[in-house]
Amino acid sequence: VSSIPLGPGAEFDVIRRILKGAAPPGPEVALASGDDCALLRAEDYRYLAVSVDLTVQDAHFLLDWGTPELVGGRAVRASVSDLAAMAAEPVGVLVALNVPADAEPGLAEQVGAGCTSACTALGAPLIGGDLSRGGGTLALDVAALGLVERPLLRSGARPGDELWVTGRLGAAAGAVGAWKAGAPVPEEWYDRFWRPEPRLVEARWLAERDVSTGIDLSDGLLADAGHISAASGVGLEIDWQAVPAAAGVEPALALAGGEDYELLVAAPGGIFSPEHVSEFERTFGIPLTRVGRAVTGIGVRVFRDGEEVALDSSGHDHFRAG
Amino acid sequence: VSSIPLGPGAEFDVIRRILKGAAPPGPEVALASGDDCALLRAEDYRYLAVSVDLTVQDAHFLLDWGTPELVGGRAVRASVSDLAAMAAEPVGVLVALNVPADAEPGLAEQVGAGCTSACTALGAPLIGGDLSRGGGTLALDVAALGLVERPLLRSGARPGDELWVTGRLGAAAGAVGAWKAGAPVPEEWYDRFWRPEPRLVEARWLAERDVSTGIDLSDGLLADAGHISAASGVGLEIDWQAVPAAAGVEPALALAGGEDYELLVAAPGGIFSPEHVSEFERTFGIPLTRVGRAVTGIGVRVFRDGEEVALDSSGHDHFRAG
Repeated sequence: VSSIPLGPGAEFDVIRRILKGAAPPGPEVALASGDDCALLRAEDYRYLAVSVDLTVQDAHFLLDWGTPELVGGRAVRASVSDLAAMAAEPVGVLVALNVPADAEPGLAEQVGAGCTSACTALGAPLIGGDLSRGGGTLALDVAALGLVERPLLRSGARPGDELWVTGRLGAAAGAVGAWKAGAPVPEEWYDRFWRPEPRLVEARWLAERDVSTGIDLSDGLLADAGHISAASGVGLEIDWQAVPAAAGVEPALALAGGEDYELLVAAPGGIFSPEHVSEFERTFGIPLTRVGRAVTGIGVRVFRDGEEVALDSSGHDHFRAG
Repeated sequence: VSSIPLGPGAEFDVIRRILKGAAPPGPEVALASGDDCALLRAEDYRYLAVSVDLTVQDAHFLLDWGTPELVGGRAVRASVSDLAAMAAEPVGVLVALNVPADAEPGLAEQVGAGCTSACTALGAPLIGGDLSRGGGTLALDVAALGLVERPLLRSGARPGDELWVTGRLGAAAGAVGAWKAGAPVPEEWYDRFWRPEPRLVEARWLAERDVSTGIDLSDGLLADAGHISAASGVGLEIDWQAVPAAAGVEPALALAGGEDYELLVAAPGGIFSPEHVSEFERTFGIPLTRVGRAVTGIGVRVFRDGEEVALDSSGHDHFRAG
């Protein structure tokens, strides 16, 4: 089963073609492809950060929302975003791809081209690949490897910390909602869903300034704040009106919509002066916005006009609805 | 999309429950789960080996061939086998899982339990996980990380080398064929398909004895010999009658059937005396069999009674058929 229907030569050649399009790996990568594993030299750094990310047709995307190239690129970007969440620098990406048994010829190459373009854009060399054909579902598996001296953990938030987010939220979820409703998808939403920007350099800028905790917003601000709350053992209070929404996005979606791949960080109170914030925004071209604070306790609470609002995990306001 | 339907808490809890069943990681693993990446300390070794493996329902297995636990275990075993192919020792495994939108409650836990059991059996601690729900397809993505000082590459074979395989071949492909034909599946075939044994300790035994090249038999002896031929720039000649078939398996399937996860190695001529072979078989309880040799040239040729036979990639004998 698995790769046999492609023929051994065919599979190998497709992977080789896909890998050839990628940027050359750095000196840490001793063996980049064509063997059973990629090999990394592990001498002159402290931590190797590793994450895996699975993208499955109909679960994470519909093919008619975009193109095979976009599917490949998005899978790589989402996985590399986990490195940004640790303030790690990418050293390599491995991709395993399954194309449906009845896939058009060239589908694997198209997805692969999307992967390699994203790898090149992100400075994350593609160092390994695997390909199979079968079943009815396009699926992609991306492992991202990075190096980091001072990793940005989820567990470092302390009562009194301020919560900050990069960029504007809700556009990716807005796009998904529009596709599902058959509504037109604004270009900014489309781009955010298909070409999210892992905040790699932004994360290192923040980590260098003694941010205590960081996470990338893949599940949505509410859910990801919940991860920080659980890992750090603190309560988090979010000021809903401060949450920066992408253009045209409902406030509820900015709070609960996932897959924007912006960063949420906690930083000791007062660390970011208005000058720091201006420097960040000037340097990276996106806002850095204070959205709340950490307190003693546990869980995430949302406030509007200073009053707590009761929300479910989709960001729906039960208080107002009821 | 992705994990939102599970609810943030639910997803986190399932992953935590799954990870809790796993053996504790070694000292190289600085951070094992609950964050965006796993973190490895990288100080006292030479190479970190990394592989990714994707398992997709209907492409790589049908659910009614086994159980969710077996699906999880097999995915881990297949991925860890890539470490064996490099003679690397496992340090950690990361698993990303997607369950269908309409999956029975508990499916993720069942697959996860299979993953952790296999991890424990193989001494490969589960150090990270991700879970989503959506679409109609169960898919699993396993990244395996290992350490190795002297990796067993595909590219080391030289003319004059002997080819050796561990174990007996064809049982996994026999099981797939039987399931597809609606025929009864012998227990040995069933076990080989669902619980393949990554040859981790066997690989290190071989690597310590100056084997020049190694690969695990995931695509089948013919196809994987083709990978060694291409990577090493040598021709390989296989003596079909010497290839050790599992009980009841057709000779063609021993040659071409994939997913046995035994090892194929090339070793300088004469390295393995009969005493060495006995020691191997006594130590590991499986045969070590000489099946051919490397010659100048390129490609894989198969001989029977000293005469070349023309085979396609499925092991079908065109010469006899014609």
